[in-house]
Parts: sequence; structure tokens; C-alpha cells
Amino acid sequence: MNRSIIRYILCKILEFAALFMVLPLLVGILYREKAAASFAVVIAGCLAVSLLGRRLKPASKVFYAKEGFVTVSLSWILLSLVGALPFYLSGEFPTFTDALYETVSGLTTTGSTVLTDVEGLSRSIQFWRCFTHWIGGMGVLVLILAVLPLSGSYNMHLMRAESPGPSVGKLVPRVKNTAMILYGIYIFITFMEVIVLLFGGMDLYEALTLTFSTVGTGGFGLLNSSIGSYPMGIQAVFTVFMLLCGINFQIYYLLLIRKPKDVLHSEELRYYLGIILLASVLIAVNVRGFFADGFQAFHHALFQVVSLMTTTGFATLDYDVWPEFSKAILFLITLLGACAGSTGGGFKVSRLVILWRSVKNEISAAIHPRSIKKIHMEGRIVGEGTVRSVLVYTAIYTMIFLVSLLLLSLNEFDFVTNISAVAANFNNVGPGFHMVGPAGNYAQFSGFSKFVLMFDMLAGRLELLPILVLFSVKTWRE
Amino acid sequence: MNRSIIRYILCKILEFAALFMVLPLLVGILYREKAAASFAVVIAGCLAVSLLGRRLKPASKVFYAKEGFVTVSLSWILLSLVGALPFYLSGEFPTFTDALYETVSGLTTTGSTVLTDVEGLSRSIQFWRCFTHWIGGMGVLVLILAVLPLSGSYNMHLMRAESPGPSVGKLVPRVKNTAMILYGIYIFITFMEVIVLLFGGMDLYEALTLTFSTVGTGGFGLLNSSIGSYPMGIQAVFTVFMLLCGINFQIYYLLLIRKPKDVLHSEELRYYLGIILLASVLIAVNVRGFFADGFQAFHHALFQVVSLMTTTGFATLDYDVWPEFSKAILFLITLLGACAGSTGGGFKVSRLVILWRSVKNEISAAIHPRSIKKIHMEGRIVGEGTVRSVLVYTAIYTMIFLVSLLLLSLNEFDFVTNISAVAANFNNVGPGFHMVGPAGNYAQFSGFSKFVLMFDMLAGRLELLPILVLFSVKTWRE
Repeated sequence: MNRSIIRYILCKILEFAALFMVLPLLVGILYREKAAASFAVVIAGCLAVSLLGRRLKPASKVFYAKEGFVTVSLSWILLSLVGALPFYLSGEFPTFTDALYETVSGLTTTGSTVLTDVEGLSRSIQFWRCFTHWIGGMGVLVLILAVLPLSGSYNMHLMRAESPGPSVGKLVPRVKNTAMILYGIYIFITFMEVIVLLFGGMDLYEALTLTFSTVGTGGFGLLNSSIGSYPMGIQAVFTVFMLLCGINFQIYYLLLIRKPKDVLHSEELRYYLGIILLASVLIAVNVRGFFADGFQAFHHALFQVVSLMTTTGFATLDYDVWPEFSKAILFLITLLGACAGSTGGGFKVSRLVILWRSVKNEISAAIHPRSIKKIHMEGRIVGEGTVRSVLVYTAIYTMIFLVSLLLLSLNEFDFVTNISAVAANFNNVGPGFHMVGPAGNYAQFSGFSKFVLMFDMLAGRLELLPILVLFSVKTWRE
Repeated sequence: MNRSIIRYILCKILEFAALFMVLPLLVGILYREKAAASFAVVIAGCLAVSLLGRRLKPASKVFYAKEGFVTVSLSWILLSLVGALPFYLSGEFPTFTDALYETVSGLTTTGSTVLTDVEGLSRSIQFWRCFTHWIGGMGVLVLILAVLPLSGSYNMHLMRAESPGPSVGKLVPRVKNTAMILYGIYIFITFMEVIVLLFGGMDLYEALTLTFSTVGTGGFGLLNSSIGSYPMGIQAVFTVFMLLCGINFQIYYLLLIRKPKDVLHSEELRYYLGIILLASVLIAVNVRGFFADGFQAFHHALFQVVSLMTTTGFATLDYDVWPEFSKAILFLITLLGACAGSTGGGFKVSRLVILWRSVKNEISAAIHPRSIKKIHMEGRIVGEGTVRSVLVYTAIYTMIFLVSLLLLSLNEFDFVTNISAVAANFNNVGPGFHMVGPAGNYAQFSGFSKFVLMFDMLAGRLELLPILVLFSVKTWRE
């Protein structure tokens, strides 16, 4: 294990954390809030520690996949710990565990909250809450790769460990340029949404914070009713931008370099849009009686489907009162998640497609044992290794899911609360059903449960392996 | 597709069905019940159709894995249809769907019932209900292989398609002898339990029927309270025999040929017993307050754990009122199931062990990419193909589970009822929670739901592939 280089990158993380906090600090100063002081203190602390740490130069450039996984995991944990400090120091969160839960929920773009009254927070704290979604959406290590003059083998290892999806497609040969393009697209979409929301009549503060929550597919809102009290037009704007951010960013790159044909042929995109449409229609028909007309039914069905499938977790109403069939669809969509290479979390559409094709292959092989077929996706053969890793991913995913369910049940809340809490946190969605439904929150969970859910959020966001490698004895043996 | 040979085997199935029904017919005659006539009619019908069908001799001996899967699936469906006839003709079941559900539940050793009052059935019908567990426990095709003078490649294909577990271990080189040994052990255990129950004070009828339900790991009882009203000593007898029938029968063969060392080294057995002990202790501690003393708490905890893990589904009390933690353990155990090569159903302990080891391998490979390790189990290397098929099995299992959950939710029952109904049927357990808990039944489900659950029971008992191959378009294309 090359500890010196990991330390070097962790120092960078601290510097970036300080940089990020300048924004909420400015908000705090602007609105003359006490919380501004907390941000100032944490910024100073981060810079001091980082300066101390930087004096120790990396001793060697050896950097393998193992170091990549460990670095990414530790970076996220460090950023969570540091990010929780302003929450805790401001006194607006009762315990450090709660502050930490909220930060992990923010950075992993989960959007589940331990607060019973979001509206009581100061503006700078609310800003930081939403901004963590934006930071975590594309990933802070991708940002570091984009702006720092690093080179060598560890670029790819870091990128691979942080980026979502079964196989990381570099857009261009150099990792640094790929990271820059991704952040360029991300910032462009962010600007677009801010402008549209400003035109919709929001002030800059509201437009910025809610945009952070949308494009990071996070789901923290400013109001206790989430997005419910905004007019339908604004709700539709959120639907569109959530939808856009659940799409693989490679698609936008293809549009950028004028290859619209490749976009039309993207299988993952087709399945993604197809599932959203199908689920929305089914739910709209099922909940028709709850609304004045079919249009409204479809509007709200589509909003919740897009919100849960992109793992954002905004809500326009309490869908926990909907019929069981609609709730079952929402539950399945919560488990599925968005496209690989998007800012959304979850199991990912592309994994489902690969899984489905390997199942079909297995049945074919049972019928004609001698015909061995390759699995195709996006016009290319999916390698044996990728198929295997998707299969193993499914197995690990299921195991962590079930063990978390068992541990959460120690709370003695009902089964639906427990299973949907695990689903909503593990897939970085946010709201579930019953006690953790759109009208509820995670305040009543025990400290132990909150740590289980934090583990799930991080494991879900980093797609299992980095966190498992970090906690594996083997990693630290030598 | 070699249709002539499939037809030949299906005729054999009809003859065996007729043979099996002689027993309930005798019971009916003995107790002078009207239902005896139904059995007589069905026996006559089976023999007539089989005689007609046998006149067409198999045209060719070609028999591949495909034919094996199709034959096994069709045999089970045919046996279910025929087995449901006496239920329906006797007038003791309201609809043919209900009669069919009960038969599928019996043959697949699920033990879930659509009846609200089991005690109102006539004795011959109750006998047939329990006897279907015994028939399905070891499998009717294994029986055919054991007693009929068949030979050739299709023995192994049939055996493989019907036997549970990730890899079928032939005990001896000849399939016929393997089948005979398995049935020999099965009959021996059956006799042992009958004798113990007779000594415990039961009459022959009660001892026989409940033994069928135990050794087949089925779970149909004679009383509405399942096993709850029997004395604790008798309950303990059931615990022991359920436990025994959840063990891989290969273990008994090893004892028979005096290789006790190999038994002690069986990893699956160790995990099986370890999980049962751990789960029972955890639950006993958790439900201690429900009972007068710790011994009773452990007795009932152990009974329910063994009953659900072996997928029998007997109950001594309504565990649906237990705390959420205990119920979560019971839910996970319901999903897991018993050992491969036992009469129990479910996902199987050996699959979990292989899954767990391939997960560990994947993490190792992430840490040290160059170290490729083989997975070991029971002292042997598990082949790549087996590992892959376990992984794909997990994927298919999860998919069927979730789709069934979605379809069942059309009933508008609550989520816990739906998810536990799927879990309990798919894993051939029987009781779940809430409406389908030990105090409930499946009477209120719609006809459509019952067919979904029948599919799940058959798919679970035959371990997915045979049923999927049967319903695959590719199978029937040429």
C-alpha cells in the first residue's frame, strides 16, 4: 500500500473542501447568519491540516487498483467528516451523528434527512446541504482529475473506482480530458436549469440550491413539502432536468461531437426512457381516481417515477397513500436506478440489460448446450469479465441489502419502513414508504441504524467494491 | 424435440398417479367416505388414457438436456392437474383453481393452503393432501428412474432437471442405483418417524399423514392450528425429523457406507446447522418475554427456524406477533432454504456458500488483480460453469421474485402480505406474514394471483431452468 500518495490526495480533498465551503460562507455573510462563522472555522482548519500534510511529499508513484479503491473510499469518508463539521458547529443539528448522516446523504446524492423541520435551517446551512449534492453528483475525484496536473496510471484507477456503471467508458484517450468534458457538461446543465428557474420566477438563492439538488440527483429541498407547493410548470421543469441528469453523460458528449445517430442507437437510453414511460402510464391509470383529470394523474405519476428512477427523491405529494400496485412499481424503480455514467445512483439500467441478456443466454445454453453466444450491448461484445462482475455485483448487492434489513429491524419499526429505508439509502434515492415516506424522515432511527444506512449510502454511491476493499482485512495485511 | 419419448414418460406419470391414489382410495373406503368415488374415477381415467397413449411407441431414443427439462416440467404440471381432480370432484374445494393450487402446493412441498378450515375435510382428502408432499419431496421422476428399466443418456438429464442443488452428485455410477438409494433412505426416514409418532400416542392415520408432511418438508397439517396443539415432546419430534430432511441425502449415504469422517467435513452441513443454531439463539433471546422460561423460548424459536429453513412451514404458534427483528430473521431464513439434495426447497445453503466465496474472490481480485483463485467447496474445486450458473441463478431468482411481487400487488393487499407470499411460495415454505401468516391462508387471493404463485412454486421446486425452458419460445421453434 502506497500510503504517501494516498495522504497526498487526501490533502487535496481537504483543500477542495475548503474551496467548496467558500460559497456557503459567502451566503452566510450575505444574509448575516451566525452559521457563517462555522464555515470560516472549518475552512481555516482544512487549510491548516492540508498545509501540514503537504510537507510530506509522495515517496513513490506506485499506484494500483487497490490504492485507487482505498483512496476513493477514504476521500469520501474524509469529505463527509469535514462536511459535517459546519452542520454540527452551527448548532442546527442535535448530534454529530445526525450532522454526519446528513452530509453522507448529501454527498452520495441520497437526499434522506434526519431533520423534522427543514424550513427552520439558516440559509447558509441549507445552501451547503444542497451544494453537497452537486459536489457528490459528478464526484470530487473526477473534479481533482480534471483540474490538477496529475498523470500516470492512477488517473484511470481513481476514475474507475469513483464512476458509476459496469464499465467505464473513457470519452477521449486522456483521463484528464474526459474528466474535464464531464464537468463541462455538468456545469452547462447546471447553468441551464438555474436560468430556466429564474425565468420561472424564483430568486437566485432558491434557483441555485434546487438546481444543485436536481442535477446532482440528490433531492434535498428547501421546504418540508419538498416540491409539492411549487406550480405544475416548475414541477415539470424539475421532471425534465432530473430526467436529463439520469442519462449517461456520454450521450451528451456524442451530441457535442455531432454523432446523433449513435445517440439514437443507445440501448441503455432506450430502456431507460421506455421503463420510465411504461411505469408512468401504469401508475397514472392506477391513480387516476386521485386526480381531477388524466393529465394531472400522468403529471404526478411521471414526476415520482422520474424522481425515484433517477434516484433524486423529490416528491410533489405523499405517494405513500397510493394503491399497492403503484407503490410496488415505485419500489422496483427505486431498486433499479438510473443510467451508468449519469449522476444518478442505484443498480443501473445497463446492469439490468446485461443481467437480462445473460439470463437469456443461460436458458439458450440449456436448450442448445453447444451454442455459445456472446452478450452484446451498445453494438459491442460485453467481455466475460464484465458479465461476471455484473453477476457478482448483483450477488453482493443482494447480500448487503438483506443484512442491512436485518440490522435495521433491531429498531422494531415495521417491515415496510425498514425495507424501504434500506432500498432508498442503498440506491441513493432518499424517501421510501411508511415512516420514511415522502412525508416522513429518518429522525427516529437509532444511531446504530444511521451508521448502517451511511454505510449503505457510501457503498451504493461508490458501487460496492471501493468500500468493501477498504473494509477488507486483506487490503491492510502487508 | 423428441415428442414421442416425452409422451411415453408422461404416460408413465399417469400410471404412477393412479398407483399413488390407491392409498387415499383405501382410506376413503375404510372410513366409508363419499370422496373415495372421486379417487376411483380418477384412477380409472388415468389408466385408460395411459393405455391409449402407450400404444404409440417412442420413435427415437434421442434425448438431450432440452428434452429433460421439458419432460420434468410437463410431468409436474400433468401430475398437478391429475392430482387436483379428486379435490375438485369431491366437492370439498370451491373451484378447480383452488384444487389445483392446493395440489401444486402439495407436490412442490410448499404447504400453503387456500382453505380456511382444514379440519372440515374428509379423511381421504386430507390423506391425499399430505401424501402429495411425500410424492413431491423426493420427486416422482427420481422414483420412475429407480423402479423402471430405463437406460441411456436421458436418465442423467431427468435426474439433473429434477434434483435440487447447484450440482447433482451421483452417489454411485448408475443413475438407477442412485435413485434407488435415495428412495431407500427416504422410505427409511419415513418409517422411523411413523414409529416414533405411534409411540408418542398418535393413531396410524395421524402418524402417517403428518410424517408425509414432515419428511417431504411440506407442511400441510390436519388441524387449523398446524402443530400448535400437540404436546412439546411431539413438537420436538417434528423438529428433529424436519432437521433431518433438510440435510443433503448424500450425508446419509456416506453414513451408510461408513464414511463418518466425510460427514464431519461437509461444509454445507456445518453452515446449515450453524445458521439454524445462530438464528434460534438470536430469536430465543429476542422473544424471551413471550414465554414462561428460556427453555420454552428456545424450543419455539428452534421449531420455527427449522420449520422455515427446511421450507416445511409447520408452526407451533403465530410468530407474526413476534418482534420485527425475529421476523426479519425468519424472513431471511425463508429465502435461504435447506441443503442441496435434501427434500427441502429454497435458494439452498450450498448456493449461498458458493456465492459468498465468489464475492470474496471478487474483492481479492480487486486488491490483487493478478492472483486468480479457484473456489473450493467440500474439498473440491467448484468449476467455473457451476459458479457462473449459481450467479445467474441468483439473478433469475431475484428477477422472478420482484416480478411476482409486482403482479401480486394488483390484489391491493399490504406489502408485507405480498412480499412474504412470494417468498413463502417461491421457496416452497408455505406461511409468510400478515394475511398469509401462520394464522392466515391464501383463500382471499385472486385466481390470477394464485396462478402467479403456482408458477413460483413450480419454478422454485424445479429450480427455475426446467420451467423457464418449457416457457421459452426457442424450445418450441423447430
